[in-house]
Amino acid sequence: MENLYALKGNIIFAKEFGKYEILEKGYVVVEGKLVKGTFEELPKEFSNIKVIDYEDKIIIPGFVDIHVHAPQYANLGLGLDKELMPWLEAYTFPEEAKYFDMDYSRKVYSSFVKDLWKFGTTRACVFATIHKNSTKLLMDIFDESGLGAYIGKVNMDRNSPKELTEKCEESLIDTEEILKEYGSKYERVKPIITPRFVVSCCPELMKGLGYLAKKYNVPVQSHLSENAGEINFVKELHPECKNYASVYDCMGLFGEVPTIMAHCVLVDENEIELMARKKVFVAHSPTSNFNLSSGIAPVRRLITRGVPVGLASDVGGGHTLSMTKVIVNSAQASNIKWVETYRVDKPLNTSELFYLATKGGGAFFGKVGSFEEGYEFDALVVDDSSLTIFKDLSLAERLQKFIYTGDDRNIKVRYVAGKEIDEPKCY
Amino acid sequence: MENLYALKGNIIFAKEFGKYEILEKGYVVVEGKLVKGTFEELPKEFSNIKVIDYEDKIIIPGFVDIHVHAPQYANLGLGLDKELMPWLEAYTFPEEAKYFDMDYSRKVYSSFVKDLWKFGTTRACVFATIHKNSTKLLMDIFDESGLGAYIGKVNMDRNSPKELTEKCEESLIDTEEILKEYGSKYERVKPIITPRFVVSCCPELMKGLGYLAKKYNVPVQSHLSENAGEINFVKELHPECKNYASVYDCMGLFGEVPTIMAHCVLVDENEIELMARKKVFVAHSPTSNFNLSSGIAPVRRLITRGVPVGLASDVGGGHTLSMTKVIVNSAQASNIKWVETYRVDKPLNTSELFYLATKGGGAFFGKVGSFEEGYEFDALVVDDSSLTIFKDLSLAERLQKFIYTGDDRNIKVRYVAGKEIDEPKCY
Repeated sequence: MENLYALKGNIIFAKEFGKYEILEKGYVVVEGKLVKGTFEELPKEFSNIKVIDYEDKIIIPGFVDIHVHAPQYANLGLGLDKELMPWLEAYTFPEEAKYFDMDYSRKVYSSFVKDLWKFGTTRACVFATIHKNSTKLLMDIFDESGLGAYIGKVNMDRNSPKELTEKCEESLIDTEEILKEYGSKYERVKPIITPRFVVSCCPELMKGLGYLAKKYNVPVQSHLSENAGEINFVKELHPECKNYASVYDCMGLFGEVPTIMAHCVLVDENEIELMARKKVFVAHSPTSNFNLSSGIAPVRRLITRGVPVGLASDVGGGHTLSMTKVIVNSAQASNIKWVETYRVDKPLNTSELFYLATKGGGAFFGKVGSFEEGYEFDALVVDDSSLTIFKDLSLAERLQKFIYTGDDRNIKVRYVAGKEIDEPKCY
Repeated sequence: MENLYALKGNIIFAKEFGKYEILEKGYVVVEGKLVKGTFEELPKEFSNIKVIDYEDKIIIPGFVDIHVHAPQYANLGLGLDKELMPWLEAYTFPEEAKYFDMDYSRKVYSSFVKDLWKFGTTRACVFATIHKNSTKLLMDIFDESGLGAYIGKVNMDRNSPKELTEKCEESLIDTEEILKEYGSKYERVKPIITPRFVVSCCPELMKGLGYLAKKYNVPVQSHLSENAGEINFVKELHPECKNYASVYDCMGLFGEVPTIMAHCVLVDENEIELMARKKVFVAHSPTSNFNLSSGIAPVRRLITRGVPVGLASDVGGGHTLSMTKVIVNSAQASNIKWVETYRVDKPLNTSELFYLATKGGGAFFGKVGSFEEGYEFDALVVDDSSLTIFKDLSLAERLQKFIYTGDDRNIKVRYVAGKEIDEPKCY
């Protein structure tokens, strides 16, 4: 019984897309790492367990960010008046070239992890850089923090600046070293195969990575169809493939293992069909897509067609790690998409986006992002009393107000897998 | 000489659209309410004046918000999954109907003004409601706070819910009462003629308001071409007019006195030409236009054609009073517009938007929004040391980082017309 406890408060989570489960002054019972259940009244069998009473506060699942670049955190908010390719060259690549330096990496990475914590992100899928040692360091820092993550050493061996161009074989050797060393080292921090994108990986490298993904049963993350210039470049590099997605597919990097593709702003019908069939996740990154003039991904259509979708900050293309801000940008993007598609692709409302930011992206981690029985208990305790409220609001409205007008100051407690997580150390 | 003082720090302002004036550890000399000049080194003639040294902090002009609805502050962040007309009916009108109640008005309005202060807005053009007494109260609260504002009693006598439908004559009498009583009551808080929009004002009311504007030489603010449904409604109401803008024009409400029109998302070529000729200001409100699925205003084109433009939060269509967040949304909107127009309407960069958020909107208030000689000294002192900075940044980059990643916590001191302004009282 000492393994069992309950949180009391205003519980909101999304079991289904577009529908809140709401328990006013209800209970979520946790056993070890997992949710045992949610209850309006505490059942008799639990009458002796410890109850933490959060009173009128709101308890929601932790946020899940399924695409973010840790080293680009150093560039947060800078240079966001360029498109993808010039931005990579002017800001991103020079920054990423620094991560051979372990002291610098420790400074930026620990600050990055602290900020994820601050904004209530409890799980993340993270790009590091090509450097294996600082990638390992990032995994160590994540584990120490208590947050959950997939972390990828980035692979790049073509069309990249000299300092970031690996030899194909070395890139594969370094990747495999991490898979061996870190595959089972930590419980909630795991490696992920991370070819940067088709442009920066030669076919041999991509095939090698596809092979490693299957050999070690490790997931894959990359970028797909973010920007028109990028897509044209991929077409030039691979005239033999019918579209961008099929390049990854040929290389064994498209859904053979669980896979995330960031952006998908300009995917065509064939790509959508392939993603739906192979259950490839889209990391929808509207903040970044706005900032880098990429356009607006057809999220409503992707969802309707059965493609799994999660939300993503895509820092540094995105300028904030706050998933509530990403939810707002997603709503805004979907509104404009609705206008652009002559009212065919319906806007995404707050409850739909809340689902994507919790259970939608959480599905990539297994049973994460909900308070259903058997889910890992990741949660945030939100105190909205500082938000200016002048009348009775429903709990759904209070959550909406927090998402639109609150910030990190409103998040009072964070849990990951049943454990309260303190502010991570910063070096 | 006791009237003279200087601020020392990293001074950034925009004299011209798209160009920063930057003085690293420079001086801005203030005489009474006005800027005397900015200097790299303090000139000999000022060697004896008091110098407030803000060290490495950044000193910028206060932000100017040229379109915001004070009563809608109570709905901040709520219901933003509707379009204009249903949103007005479900959220806005029921809220605005409450402002006959002076206690309730005092509570919301003082909280609203405190939040404007918090986010560094030093001047605002504000819609109140139809209620004259609480409109006067709002002017009193503004004056007490020290912030500058134009504040309008809203006029509505058709197509509105019963509680918000005035009689035409009474609406004009109430408006004139405020003009007489408050025209010269306060130095920096002034009345402004505020027909809600064509839809809610009969021709007689609009003509009467046009007459009052000229008689008392008072500016005008309203809404123009925000949304397709609204425009169709205006066409039905006024088939005799060739477009929406010309309805206002016929009524003497379009540039006879200084005029602001909010939104202008869907203005046509003739309307743009008329606005440029009559120097009618556009209150560009991208956050609101995103939230209410209105679309994206052609801001680059408006500016190129010579229409004066300022930025606006449009709370409650916008969900934040923060003008830095409005700058970011403006950049994002302009990026998408660029994609939508097949790269004809160039994106707006940070220095262009900083100009619009300070001197651009400030021009409506006279010499406001810049540190040029003779400008009223409205300023913010920004401490960006809490923002994660891992390398040397230029001052322009530090400002960009504050705009994209900072918040109210970074604003340490606010000045309006030469006077430091403390946190306003909240009732």
